[in-house]
Amino acid sequence: MGLCQRWRLLRLPGFQACGLHTVREAAVPTPPNWLVERRGLFEELWTAQVKRLESMAQKEQRAIRISLPGGQKVDAVAWKTTPYQLAQQISSKLADTAVAAQVNGEPYDLERPLETDSDLRFLTFDSPEGKAVFWHSSTHVLGAAAEQLLGAVLCQGPSTECGFYHDFFLGKERCGLLVDLCRGPHLRHTGQIGGLKLLTNSSSSWRFSGAPETLQRVSGISFPTAEELRAWEEWREEAELRDHRRIGKEQELFFFHELSPGSCFFLPRGTRVYNALVAFIRAEYTRRGFSEVKTPTLFSTKLWEQSGHWEHYREDMFALQTPGSDRPTCSQNDHHTSRPTDTLALKPMNCPAHCLMFAHRPRSWRELPLRLADFGALHRAEASGSLGGLTRLRRFQQDDAHIFCAPAQLEAEIRSCLDFLRSVYAVLGFSFHLALSTRPSGFLGEPCLWDQAEQVLQQALEEFGEPWDLNPGDGAFYGPKIDVHLHDALGRPHQCGTIQLDFQLPLRFDLQYRGQAGALERPVLIHRAVLGSVERMLGVLAESCGGKWPLWLSPFQVVVIPVGAEQEEYAREAQQSLRAVGLAADLDADPGLTLGRRVRRAQLAHYNFLFVVGQKEQTKRTVNIRTRDNRQLGEWDLAEAAQRLLELQNSRAPNAEEMF
Amino acid sequence: MGLCQRWRLLRLPGFQACGLHTVREAAVPTPPNWLVERRGLFEELWTAQVKRLESMAQKEQRAIRISLPGGQKVDAVAWKTTPYQLAQQISSKLADTAVAAQVNGEPYDLERPLETDSDLRFLTFDSPEGKAVFWHSSTHVLGAAAEQLLGAVLCQGPSTECGFYHDFFLGKERCGLLVDLCRGPHLRHTGQIGGLKLLTNSSSSWRFSGAPETLQRVSGISFPTAEELRAWEEWREEAELRDHRRIGKEQELFFFHELSPGSCFFLPRGTRVYNALVAFIRAEYTRRGFSEVKTPTLFSTKLWEQSGHWEHYREDMFALQTPGSDRPTCSQNDHHTSRPTDTLALKPMNCPAHCLMFAHRPRSWRELPLRLADFGALHRAEASGSLGGLTRLRRFQQDDAHIFCAPAQLEAEIRSCLDFLRSVYAVLGFSFHLALSTRPSGFLGEPCLWDQAEQVLQQALEEFGEPWDLNPGDGAFYGPKIDVHLHDALGRPHQCGTIQLDFQLPLRFDLQYRGQAGALERPVLIHRAVLGSVERMLGVLAESCGGKWPLWLSPFQVVVIPVGAEQEEYAREAQQSLRAVGLAADLDADPGLTLGRRVRRAQLAHYNFLFVVGQKEQTKRTVNIRTRDNRQLGEWDLAEAAQRLLELQNSRAPNAEEMF
Repeated sequence: MGLCQRWRLLRLPGFQACGLHTVREAAVPTPPNWLVERRGLFEELWTAQVKRLESMAQKEQRAIRISLPGGQKVDAVAWKTTPYQLAQQISSKLADTAVAAQVNGEPYDLERPLETDSDLRFLTFDSPEGKAVFWHSSTHVLGAAAEQLLGAVLCQGPSTECGFYHDFFLGKERCGLLVDLCRGPHLRHTGQIGGLKLLTNSSSSWRFSGAPETLQRVSGISFPTAEELRAWEEWREEAELRDHRRIGKEQELFFFHELSPGSCFFLPRGTRVYNALVAFIRAEYTRRGFSEVKTPTLFSTKLWEQSGHWEHYREDMFALQTPGSDRPTCSQNDHHTSRPTDTLALKPMNCPAHCLMFAHRPRSWRELPLRLADFGALHRAEASGSLGGLTRLRRFQQDDAHIFCAPAQLEAEIRSCLDFLRSVYAVLGFSFHLALSTRPSGFLGEPCLWDQAEQVLQQALEEFGEPWDLNPGDGAFYGPKIDVHLHDALGRPHQCGTIQLDFQLPLRFDLQYRGQAGALERPVLIHRAVLGSVERMLGVLAESCGGKWPLWLSPFQVVVIPVGAEQEEYAREAQQSLRAVGLAADLDADPGLTLGRRVRRAQLAHYNFLFVVGQKEQTKRTVNIRTRDNRQLGEWDLAEAAQRLLELQNSRAPNAEEMF
Repeated sequence: MGLCQRWRLLRLPGFQACGLHTVREAAVPTPPNWLVERRGLFEELWTAQVKRLESMAQKEQRAIRISLPGGQKVDAVAWKTTPYQLAQQISSKLADTAVAAQVNGEPYDLERPLETDSDLRFLTFDSPEGKAVFWHSSTHVLGAAAEQLLGAVLCQGPSTECGFYHDFFLGKERCGLLVDLCRGPHLRHTGQIGGLKLLTNSSSSWRFSGAPETLQRVSGISFPTAEELRAWEEWREEAELRDHRRIGKEQELFFFHELSPGSCFFLPRGTRVYNALVAFIRAEYTRRGFSEVKTPTLFSTKLWEQSGHWEHYREDMFALQTPGSDRPTCSQNDHHTSRPTDTLALKPMNCPAHCLMFAHRPRSWRELPLRLADFGALHRAEASGSLGGLTRLRRFQQDDAHIFCAPAQLEAEIRSCLDFLRSVYAVLGFSFHLALSTRPSGFLGEPCLWDQAEQVLQQALEEFGEPWDLNPGDGAFYGPKIDVHLHDALGRPHQCGTIQLDFQLPLRFDLQYRGQAGALERPVLIHRAVLGSVERMLGVLAESCGGKWPLWLSPFQVVVIPVGAEQEEYAREAQQSLRAVGLAADLDADPGLTLGRRVRRAQLAHYNFLFVVGQKEQTKRTVNIRTRDNRQLGEWDLAEAAQRLLELQNSRAPNAEEMF
């Protein structure tokens, strides 16, 4: 029996107080006719289903064998034994914590009888699949409450990566007689949900239509126990402390302004981090044979027509008329003619510009692989409601590169793209996970080309030696791709890097090169990025390190602290000399605070190194060094200390404070 | 007697063949009535003037004293003695080469009688003022020919920095009965023009009206002798060889594409030069206490209204609507309401964004001077006809910085801006000239503030110790400025850097800081740039070095040349190792060319260094080095050679080939 039947009986405390906004009086309505009718229909179907199961079980009386993970096999009766019964046989703890089963890879309600010899796996809240079932069931609880208490019409209500949400229609218009034909599987009963918390209430819109009615979206999260909910709340507080918008404000890295929504203003400290990231990638480009180029920002829409962006992406592009192009010209024959109107659009991607660059003169096989990298600013007209911190912007720059290569060079190029990813993420302190997405239905191009390319990607992944998943059918219509999810210090996943094959753009731009045998051949195009959006990566890093930047990225490398007013001049001199060699050095000579207070303040501000200077240090032109974690490094010659910091910075040491 | 009288007699060869386009048949017309009438009027006035001079001379019979440069004084007769007569007394060469005189600072025809005791200076073709007179007279020759031979109506015809041009109206509409009421002074006779060459023929428009008729503009140049014209033609050929568009194409530095007019595509080699320039300025920023920031590209027009750009500069800005902002929203009361329309514009300058940054939180005197630097891309909607190479672009980046300082800090800041200019231009190999432009009529702000600021600028210039000029009344309406003209290796002037005070933007953005005494005070704003547009500077440098880049800017630092096919692998390895440390290294292993031919080719391509590797070098892992000027530097260990090149690159040595 599913959750649906129990809706009428639910009286969860807290729902009455959750304050959903509705356009009519929030009085509890009596159930409308269709709800009664729907329930009747459900009861009828349910009774028929119970009867059918019983008759199947009696007719067959067949013994079946169920294989459990680890190879254990257990006996069961077809059409009778349920996964829940088997879980009880194994342990009562498993029976309590299992949320659903997987039978021959298919999701199964715990109380649905098994039908044949099967492989069975229990899902608990610990696994992503288990969480999905748990939160999917929780969203029904939310839906039931909203339907009964608020008269809401239920729309979609999926589980997400970190909880669930449900969309409701609360206006006068009906969206039809929705019956939740949900496939499940579901929890056995709502008692399994030990803790549930509603999080946000916002507006949303119909999923697949342009209908103008606004829906209410309520999101929440739930756990098997109240303790788990409490632990999650603590983790969330920590994550909020680490929120990059908060860190960005506190550390004066960046800000946003209503006069340029979705575009970030990077203050001097934020620009320092930004430039350090770009310099890192530039150094890798040098080592790895990438050539940096600079391409325009504004292009005629003719370019976007050729690339296909105008057809598929137009709504997300900023377009404009060339000023003066629509001013009338005076000819004696026709005073109303206009000069030809040229529409321009800000580039949302660099690839078409790089195709123009490839095509601007004849190319030879000797020039391949040609690896063009570009940090150009991209603009995408994201809806203002979706903008948030550095995560989604209207203006951003990518560490974007396009590799034009011969088909025979593909595997080596993919391997070195993967190696590029690994070495950058290692320096940034991220682990990562790879997935190969293969051709979707409706793919463009020759199937044999796809076969070959998917095989090459697969081989490159195998040889790379890191674990990877296969996502069949998840590729883009223009080529297969490798998705990269990195995991930050809190274990949260982010999609930043990508490696993507493209068979279509070389066709659309008619890209060719003279092959070794003299004939013209078509190059393959690889789109790739490691950081992805530099802005977004900066946000991910800020959260991952919680504002305690590694030295090479840090806008707080050194603070010079004079013991007393007599040392202020020497301290200022020391600060200036550190700055002159490119170190981010501040001075804290605040006469209103004791030395101890200023040291504490510097450590709370996460300065990597504190250079304290007293009378002795001033005389000897030295500094007394300690770290933000209060390691005492003793007295150093000022110039030598600066030199050591530069070495640690330039080698991008992840833990300079320990290596000093 | 001026030139005008001799128009009818002129029959310069070459004019018939110069092929001016005219909208009617180019038959030589008979002089129209008004021309005859005008000539009669002129003769009448001229006779009266000659009579007046004679009567003045007879009446006064007065001896006067004329002071020449160097202190010499000569006697003359008022209303009788002409500068030409004095020139003849001094030397017949001076009489032949003088083109006009300056009498008490006022321009004078050589044959205009002196009236009173005066300081007199002869102008020859050698001086800028002399050239201006010479070319001004030459443009009358051109005008006369066009009027008589083509029936052209004469419009403006000025001298320019490098020759002259004349605009003509050749259509059916008349622009009125123009009589050339020219103030002069002019040459004594057209025989002084020994060589004259017409250069271009293009269209132009009426100077001070929006009238739609198109004029013809013919430009030319002239010299006192035919030899000088020939020498100029040679110099011009050299300059054309050095044309940055030609170098840009030959060296594959950059290209332009019709799909993005006015925006440059920088190829890998051009990007290398570009990035080296930016890195140079960044290094100076670090030494000099500037903080780099990154600001958005698109801003609401509300920002440009506040800054004043929308009122004064709107026509030159790219503006657009936020996509989706004009899509109608459905409310039940009014189906036709639109969401508020937000107009955005691409920034043509960084200053307003930096003002927002200054204003985004309260500021204290302790933070001043705040020096914000920005390499952000700027867009200006230049007319497509005015675009040309890197000189005038629609998209460019500046080494733009804005200094917010207290009034008392102004002088020190200006001095260090001047020092910044001098040290950068010294590395780039430019001399420069400074000029102080003071308040124009219609200036905004307090006169006493202007007095003070102009005094401060003047004092800073004096202390700086380089020569400078005063341009009274040439400042911007918002503040006085220092114009900087640099001179390239061919001696041609370019305006790149600028130092400009601004009293208006701090008012418009209501910028304030908490002063030392606790009261709110208004900062002064300095706009400054050293390179100016990085793109344009790249073009100036390309022409100045004629494509022979100094090592630190060079995209052709090293070419590795194997003696034979057996050394190709080692040569490639050497090339890769040079590239991996960031040097621009190519390989020339073309088996179709002898070693000698490949060495020659590399030198013609201006590779700074040639690393030749034969059997011996391969065995010993060395390279045999020579320079593009064929200096032999002998055998070097490969790693040591790379190290030495990096040192020379990082120190930005102007002549690395000699210092190696």
